[in-house]
Amino acid sequence: METAIAGYTYGSDAVARSPLSAEEFDLLKKTVLFGAEDERYLRLAGEVLADQIEAVLDVWYGFVGSHPHLAIYFSSPEGVLDTEYLTRVRARFHQWILDTCNRPYDTDWLNYQQEIGLRHTRAKKNLTDHVRSVPYIGMRYMIAFIYPITATVKPFLANKGHSAEEVEKMHQAWFKSIVLQVTLWCLPYVEPANF
Amino acid sequence: METAIAGYTYGSDAVARSPLSAEEFDLLKKTVLFGAEDERYLRLAGEVLADQIEAVLDVWYGFVGSHPHLAIYFSSPEGVLDTEYLTRVRARFHQWILDTCNRPYDTDWLNYQQEIGLRHTRAKKNLTDHVRSVPYIGMRYMIAFIYPITATVKPFLANKGHSAEEVEKMHQAWFKSIVLQVTLWCLPYVEPANF
Ligand code: HEM
Ligand code: HEM
Repeated sequence: METAIAGYTYGSDAVARSPLSAEEFDLLKKTVLFGAEDERYLRLAGEVLADQIEAVLDVWYGFVGSHPHLAIYFSSPEGVLDTEYLTRVRARFHQWILDTCNRPYDTDWLNYQQEIGLRHTRAKKNLTDHVRSVPYIGMRYMIAFIYPITATVKPFLANKGHSAEEVEKMHQAWFKSIVLQVTLWCLPYVEPANF
Repeated sequence: METAIAGYTYGSDAVARSPLSAEEFDLLKKTVLFGAEDERYLRLAGEVLADQIEAVLDVWYGFVGSHPHLAIYFSSPEGVLDTEYLTRVRARFHQWILDTCNRPYDTDWLNYQQEIGLRHTRAKKNLTDHVRSVPYIGMRYMIAFIYPITATVKPFLANKGHSAEEVEKMHQAWFKSIVLQVTLWCLPYVEPANF
């Protein structure tokens, strides 16, 4: 199944290597208070979201599509939206939601976060899909997206009849994971000495 | 009152200037969905938090103090905690909670965010309090702190008898503001062309 997603190279030799040590990664998890309970609630979130992922993506793509300053990143340098690019990335985005919920956050996972980060920067944006688009996504929007990507998922977590407390725990685990991932994705934006 | 806080230079000529244009700032606010309703709920949060700020700071300082990888930033290069440094920064942190809730996010505010960002980087850390400490805070922890600084404030917002809906709206406004501010604070960490 996974190999059917164009450009999705998780676990393969084509993936970048994270420069972070296991200890540095561990300190980051501690800083966002990410622990075993969060892993359990992410698995539950994975079950809850499984048949709603396209609906979640509709919300996110709607958000990007309705804001010209975000849509440009999926457009040609002349500003024409590249729907094939959007569609190809969407398939990897779908898989990413599953990975966020279901994968162990091990070395393969950490390396793929480095890869995803790079794919938003000048180093690798556009290469995977062989597209002509703006060369990178400003780091400002990577961080700012923590808000919409966290907030918009909550109603979906509440759609399968779980208690308010369970929904809240799934949502907190999701929030921690997003902050953790965006932190990792910002690594290739800065001088190693400032990260 | 304000001039009594050592090193708090808000609105003065000593503050750095933000390189962001008003339009760029506006796009960031749009990206975190920050609007007039959030301003209203931040004002309410300001009222709710007013007599609880030291308790909030106790939680945050407890978190930093119990994690050696965070406490080093308030310590000498040899690792001895500098309690005077902690105390001086705490007074500005107190004021920052008030500012986050009560100030208009105008040019003075935007400039002070640039100043706060710089005070976490090699450019300005330690200068304000004339201390000898580690030279900068890694950008990774600036972003990662979005989680604890957002999550830990919620119980305090619920302490004054507001409805669950009002508490949630105050908390969302706080969350948006934290993401917005951390985004601004990360500006001096990167090449302008990558921000
Ligand atoms: C929390 C923030 C974000 C999340 C969770 C996120 C998620 C993702 C994921 C999962 C992928 C595919 C990774 C892969 O190739 O396997 C991706 C790629 C991409 N994202 Fe993001 N993203 C974020 C921020 C942004 C922002 C702010 C934009 C700007 C509109 C953006 C635009 C893109 C583009 C254009 C690609 C394709 C990059 C390429 O050419 O390979 N992303 N993103
Ligand atoms: C959401 C993240 C953070 C928030 C809201 C925050 C807030 C603040 C505030 C309001 C100040 C005082 C600003 C002024 O001078 O008026 C400050 C300074 C400081 N913060 Fe942070 N901070 C964050 C991240 C961090 C992290 C991760 C550390 C590491 C433990 C840290 C350590 C410090 C230190 C050492 C200072 C004093 C800097 C100086 O020498 O002037 N902060 N912070």
